[in-house]
Amino acid sequence: MLDIVIMAAGKGTRMKSSRPKVLHTLAGRPLLQHVLATAASLGARKLITITGHGADAVEQSMRAAFGADAALAFVRQEPQLGTGHAVQQALPELGETGTTLILNGDVPLIEAATARALVEACGGTRLALLTIELLDAGGYGRIVRDPMDATRVLRIVEHKDASEEQRAIDEVYTGVMAAPTAWLRQALARLKNDNAQREYYLTDVVGFAVADGMPVVAAQPATETEVLGVNSPLQLAELERRFQRTQAETLMEAGVRLADPARFDLRGTLQTGSDVEIDIGCLFEGDVSLGDNVRIGAHCCIRNAKIEADAVIHPFTHIDGEQLGVVVGAGALVGPYARLRPGAQLGAGVHIGNFVEVKNSTLGVDAKANHLAYLGDASVGARVNIGAGSITANYDGANKHRTVIGDDVHVGSNCVLVAPVTLGDGATIGGGSTIGKDAPAGQLTVARAKQVTLPGWQRPVKQPKAR
Amino acid sequence: MLDIVIMAAGKGTRMKSSRPKVLHTLAGRPLLQHVLATAASLGARKLITITGHGADAVEQSMRAAFGADAALAFVRQEPQLGTGHAVQQALPELGETGTTLILNGDVPLIEAATARALVEACGGTRLALLTIELLDAGGYGRIVRDPMDATRVLRIVEHKDASEEQRAIDEVYTGVMAAPTAWLRQALARLKNDNAQREYYLTDVVGFAVADGMPVVAAQPATETEVLGVNSPLQLAELERRFQRTQAETLMEAGVRLADPARFDLRGTLQTGSDVEIDIGCLFEGDVSLGDNVRIGAHCCIRNAKIEADAVIHPFTHIDGEQLGVVVGAGALVGPYARLRPGAQLGAGVHIGNFVEVKNSTLGVDAKANHLAYLGDASVGARVNIGAGSITANYDGANKHRTVIGDDVHVGSNCVLVAPVTLGDGATIGGGSTIGKDAPAGQLTVARAKQVTLPGWQRPVKQPKAR
Amino acid sequence: MLDIVIMAAGKGTRMKSSRPKVLHTLAGRPLLQHVLATAASLGARKLITITGHGADAVEQSMRAAFGADAALAFVRQEPQLGTGHAVQQALPELGETGTTLILNGDVPLIEAATARALVEACGGTRLALLTIELLDAGGYGRIVRDPMDATRVLRIVEHKDASEEQRAIDEVYTGVMAAPTAWLRQALARLKNDNAQREYYLTDVVGFAVADGMPVVAAQPATETEVLGVNSPLQLAELERRFQRTQAETLMEAGVRLADPARFDLRGTLQTGSDVEIDIGCLFEGDVSLGDNVRIGAHCCIRNAKIEADAVIHPFTHIDGEQLGVVVGAGALVGPYARLRPGAQLGAGVHIGNFVEVKNSTLGVDAKANHLAYLGDASVGARVNIGAGSITANYDGANKHRTVIGDDVHVGSNCVLVAPVTLGDGATIGGGSTIGKDAPAGQLTVARAKQVTLPGWQRPVKQPKAR
Repeated sequence: MLDIVIMAAGKGTRMKSSRPKVLHTLAGRPLLQHVLATAASLGARKLITITGHGADAVEQSMRAAFGADAALAFVRQEPQLGTGHAVQQALPELGETGTTLILNGDVPLIEAATARALVEACGGTRLALLTIELLDAGGYGRIVRDPMDATRVLRIVEHKDASEEQRAIDEVYTGVMAAPTAWLRQALARLKNDNAQREYYLTDVVGFAVADGMPVVAAQPATETEVLGVNSPLQLAELERRFQRTQAETLMEAGVRLADPARFDLRGTLQTGSDVEIDIGCLFEGDVSLGDNVRIGAHCCIRNAKIEADAVIHPFTHIDGEQLGVVVGAGALVGPYARLRPGAQLGAGVHIGNFVEVKNSTLGVDAKANHLAYLGDASVGARVNIGAGSITANYDGANKHRTVIGDDVHVGSNCVLVAPVTLGDGATIGGGSTIGKDAPAGQLTVARAKQVTLPGWQRPVKQPKAR
Repeated sequence: MLDIVIMAAGKGTRMKSSRPKVLHTLAGRPLLQHVLATAASLGARKLITITGHGADAVEQSMRAAFGADAALAFVRQEPQLGTGHAVQQALPELGETGTTLILNGDVPLIEAATARALVEACGGTRLALLTIELLDAGGYGRIVRDPMDATRVLRIVEHKDASEEQRAIDEVYTGVMAAPTAWLRQALARLKNDNAQREYYLTDVVGFAVADGMPVVAAQPATETEVLGVNSPLQLAELERRFQRTQAETLMEAGVRLADPARFDLRGTLQTGSDVEIDIGCLFEGDVSLGDNVRIGAHCCIRNAKIEADAVIHPFTHIDGEQLGVVVGAGALVGPYARLRPGAQLGAGVHIGNFVEVKNSTLGVDAKANHLAYLGDASVGARVNIGAGSITANYDGANKHRTVIGDDVHVGSNCVLVAPVTLGDGATIGGGSTIGKDAPAGQLTVARAKQVTLPGWQRPVKQPKAR
Repeated sequence: MLDIVIMAAGKGTRMKSSRPKVLHTLAGRPLLQHVLATAASLGARKLITITGHGADAVEQSMRAAFGADAALAFVRQEPQLGTGHAVQQALPELGETGTTLILNGDVPLIEAATARALVEACGGTRLALLTIELLDAGGYGRIVRDPMDATRVLRIVEHKDASEEQRAIDEVYTGVMAAPTAWLRQALARLKNDNAQREYYLTDVVGFAVADGMPVVAAQPATETEVLGVNSPLQLAELERRFQRTQAETLMEAGVRLADPARFDLRGTLQTGSDVEIDIGCLFEGDVSLGDNVRIGAHCCIRNAKIEADAVIHPFTHIDGEQLGVVVGAGALVGPYARLRPGAQLGAGVHIGNFVEVKNSTLGVDAKANHLAYLGDASVGARVNIGAGSITANYDGANKHRTVIGDDVHVGSNCVLVAPVTLGDGATIGGGSTIGKDAPAGQLTVARAKQVTLPGWQRPVKQPKAR
C-alpha cells in the first residue's frame, strides 16, 4: 500500500512572481502537474498534495488538469513551519501501514522508474533516500555512509555543519524519500524545532531511523535532470531546455527528422508517423498528430491539430485548434503565413495559401484558397476555388451566420459573401462582387458597377506640409 | 589512374525511414551527393557507387543531381554480404592498374584534401587507411601499429576482439581506404566469410597486405567531422549542425555579419557582397546571392533568389524562386511578411510591403505595393502605386491571363484587375473598382456603386444561442 | 581629475567591411558607443576619442548618439603610427594633472566598476594595467611580476619575445591602462619607433615607469567578457551572444520568464513589469516596455513600443514604433501576423488580428480589426468593428488624409474608406462598399451594385499551352 505526499506549499520568492511556484510551467504544464502525473502512474492509494502559498489556485489548477474523478487529496500547511511540519499535515490522509513516498512539487522531472526503485528500496522496512553524486556538491546536504557497511546511510549533514572531510563527499540528498508509513507517523511526532530557523526538518527522521535501528538506504536516479528543482526563472529555463532536448531525442529515435533539436519545442504530446520532417524553430502545443511523410516548414506554431499523411505545412504557419481542433487532410498544402483556427477541417488535397485565415469551416477535397482570404463559419465544397481577397462576412455585428458553398464553385477575387448565403454547385461569382442573396448553381452571378472613365479628371497635387 | 568506389547499399535501419539512408539530406542535399561531389573533384577515371537498398531511387536521384553527362557508374550489391562483398561487385568497373579509393556514402563531409592525401599515401604501392584518434574510441576498430616502425600499420582489431592493451589505443579506422587496384583485385578474391555474421569484411585485406609484405600506412583527416557517419536521425541532426556551423564561419570570415551563427541555415550556395548583414533565424536554400550592403531581417526564408545591392529584406519574408528565380532590385525594400514567388522581378527601389504576394511579375523601378496585395502574371511599370487590398485576377478558373500596368499608374485600394487587362501610362483607378476592360492612359477610371444611406434600417440584435 | 582616452582609429581589416571597425554594432549599438557610454558614467573631465580610419563617420555617429551637449572630444591620428602615437595625439586635450585612463573602442563590454578599480589602482601615483589570466594565453603579451613583490609588474613581454618560462605565464595585458597624466606626458615623449613595424608602442611606457621607479600595478576585470576585443565578424558574433546571454540572465533574475535564453535578443532597453513571459525567438530593439502579465508569443519583433499590462502579443507579430512609438493598451490582443507601425495607439482591450496593419492611428477601447485590414491615418472610436479586408484609403497618390470613425461603428468586409471621410457614431457600413462621402451616425450606408445572375454564361475552358 503506497501513499504519496507531494510538497507544494512553498512560495518561490526567487521566481519574483505572483503565481505560486509549483504552478509555473515547464513545457506548458505546471511543475506540480508533471509530478502528479508521474505519481499517478505509480498505483498509489492516495496522492496527497501539501499546499500553502496560493493553495486555492494550486488546488483548482490540479483539479482542472486531472478531472474531478482523480484521487487527489489536498492538505494545507499554514503557516509553513518546515518540511517536517508539511508532512505532519498529511498524516490524517496517510494509511496505517505500507509505504509513504515523499516527492517535491518543484522537482518536476522525476521518473516513475526512479520513484519505484526508491519504494522498493524502502520495502516497507527501511528508510530510503534518493541521493545523487554531484560534481559540485557545495551547499547540499551530504550523505554520510557507514564505513563498515556502505549500503547503510548514517546521516545527512547539512553543508554548513559539515567537516572538511564531509564536504569532500559528493553524494547529496535530493529531498525525496520513502519510509514505512507506521514508523513515519511516530518519527514525525518526535520532530523538534530547536534550530535557528525554528522549523521542523523532515531530514531529522534519518537520525531517528538510525537510533531506532532501522536501516537507512539510498537509491539514485538515472540522470541529474530528474532531481533538479526550480527556484528561479533561470533554473526554470534551464530545466525547460533539458526537457525539450530529451523530447527531441525521443522523437529522433522514433525516426522524426529535426533540422535542429536545439530549436524544437513541444509543450504537450506529438504523435508522429514515419518519415516526418520538422524544420527549424517550430513550436508544438497541446495534442498534435502528424501523419506519414508530413513536412513542417520553418517557424511554424501548431497546437491541437491533426495533420494527415503527406501534408506539407509551409513556413510561418499558425495552427491553433483550441478546444475544437483542426484537421489538415492528406496531401494538403498549407502556408506560408496561413492561419488555421478552431474547427478548420481541410479535406484531402486542399490548398490554403498565404495570408489566408480559416475558422470553423470545412473544405472539401481539392478546394483552394491561395491568397488573402477569410473563411469563417463556411461549408466549402470539393474543388472550389476561392479568389484572392475574398471573404465570408459571417458576422453582422451581432450574430454569426454560415456560408454554404457547393462543389466546383469558382469565387472571383475580392468578393464578399454576406452570410447567411448559399452558392450552388458549379456557381461562378464575378470578381469584386458582394453577394447577399443565394447564387444559383452552374451560372455566373455578379454584382458589379459599370466601369467608366472620367476624362477631365486631374490628379491631386502634393500639398506643402503646414508648418 | 584513380577509381573511386562509394559504398551506398546499406538500409540504415536506425533511420526508421522508408528512404534509403544515403538519400537522407544534409544541408538540403542527399548524403551521397555530398560524397559524390567531393569525389568528382578528385579527377578520378570513374566514380562507382555500390547500391543496394532502394537502388533505383538512389541511382535516379544521383543522375538527376549530377546530370546525364556525369561519369557515374552504379553497381548493385544484392544481397548485401558485407563490405568486402560490396567492393567485389565493383571489380568489373575498376581499372587494371592505378589506385582505388573507397569512400562511404553515409559519411558525407570528407574533404577532397583528405582524400587526396590518402591517395598519395597509397601511392599505388601501399595500402593506405584513413584513421583518426578519438577521445572515446570504444566500439571502433583499433589501429595496431608496428612497434618497430610506427609508420606501419599491422592490423585493425575489432573492439570485441581487442585486448585490454589494444583497447587503450585511441587511433581507429574510419572505413575509408586507398589501395593499389591490381593488388586489391587479388586481395578481394581471397576474402572469406568464415565469421559469425557470414559476411565478407573489407578490413580483412589489411591482413593480406601485411602477409604480402605490402606496406600499410595511415593518413588522418583535418577534423573529426570529416569522418562522422550518419546512422540515425540524431546523428544526422548533429552533423547538420556541425556543417551549418562551418558554413557560418566561412561566411563570417568573408565578412558577412551573422547575428547568431547558431541560428543560420544554408542549404545550397550563398554568394555575398561586402557588408552583408543577416539577422537571427534565417534559412537560405538553393542558390542565393546577396549584393553589397544587403540586410536580411530576422526569420526570413529565401530560396533561389538574387538580391541586389542595398536591398533590405524585413523580417518574416518568404522568397522562393523555385526554377524561375526571383530578382530583388538594388535598394528595394521587401517585407515584413512579403512573399515573392517564382518569376517575381523587382526593379531598383521597389517596395513590397506586408501581406503582399508577387508571382511571375515584373515591377519597374520605384513601383510600390505596400499592403495586402496580390500581383500575379503582371507587368507593372515604373513608379506605379498599387493600393492596399488590390488584386490581379489572373485566373479565370481555367486559364491564367496577364495584367499590364503602364508607368506612373495609381491603383486605388481593394481594386480587382480582371486579366487580361491593360492600364495605360498614368492611369488612375478609383478605390474599390473592378476593372474588366482596359483603362486609358492619364485618366481616372472607376467602377463604383452609388453610396446611399438607408435611414430606417435597424441593426441586428444578438440572438440567444439555440440550446 | 580623470581624463579618458579611447583608441578608435583602427581600420579593422579582418572585419572585411567598408565601415570603420568601432562602428560595427553589438546589440544594435556601435562598439565605440558602448565604451563611451561606460566612460561617460565615470565622471571624467573629458572623453577624448582618437579617430583615424573613417574618422568623419565615427565622429558623426557618436555626436548623433550622445547629443551635441555631450563633452566629447575627438582627435585624429593620421597616419596611424602605433598605439603610443595615438595617445600622443590626445596630449593637447589632456589635463596637466590627475589620471588618464586609456580604453579601447573595439573592446565594448568593459564595466564601469572595472574601470574605476583601475583608476583607483593608479591613484595618481602608479601605472596601473588591466590584466587577465587566460587558459590559453598564446599570442598575448605576458605580465612579468616582480618575484620579490608580486604586487609589482616588471614588464609586459610580447609573445614573440617571450622565453619558454615567460610563455608559461597565464596573466596577460588587456590593452587598458591608467597612468598619472603628468608622468604620461613625459613618458610618451620618450617613445621610440626603433622596431620592425616602425611604430610607437604605448606598452613601452611600462619600461619607463620601472626605470623611473614608479610602481606598476595591475587590476583585473570581473569576467573575461569585459576585455574581449572585436577583430572579425566571428568575434563580433561571439561577443554578441555573450552580451545577449548576460542580458537574458539579468531579465530572468528580475522575474521575466524566457522560454529559451539562447533565443532572446535585446538591442536596446527592455523595461518589464511582473510576470512577463517571452516565448522563443523574440527580438526587441530600441526602447520597449512590457507591463505586468504581458505575454509575448514566439518569433515576435518589437521595437520602440509600450505594451501595457495584461496585453497578449501572439506569434509572428511585428511592431516598430520608429520615432513615433507604438502603444498597445491594457489587455489588448495583437496578432498573429499583426503589424503595428509608428503612431499606432491601441486602447485597452483592442483586438488586432491576423494580416492587419495599423499605422499612425488611434483605436478606442475594445475596438477590433481582426482580419486582413489596413488602418492608416485613422481615428477609430470605442467598440468599433472593422470587417475583414477593409481598408482606409489614406493616400490619393499625392497626399495623406485622415479617416475618422466614431464610437460603435460597424464596418463590413472589404470596404474602402476613401479619406478624408468621417463615419458617425453607430454608423454601419455594408460589406463591399467604397465610401467616399461622410456616413451619418446610427444608419446603414452602403455602396453596392445590384446582384445579377447571367444564365447563359459559359465557364472558360482550359486552353492548350502554345508550343
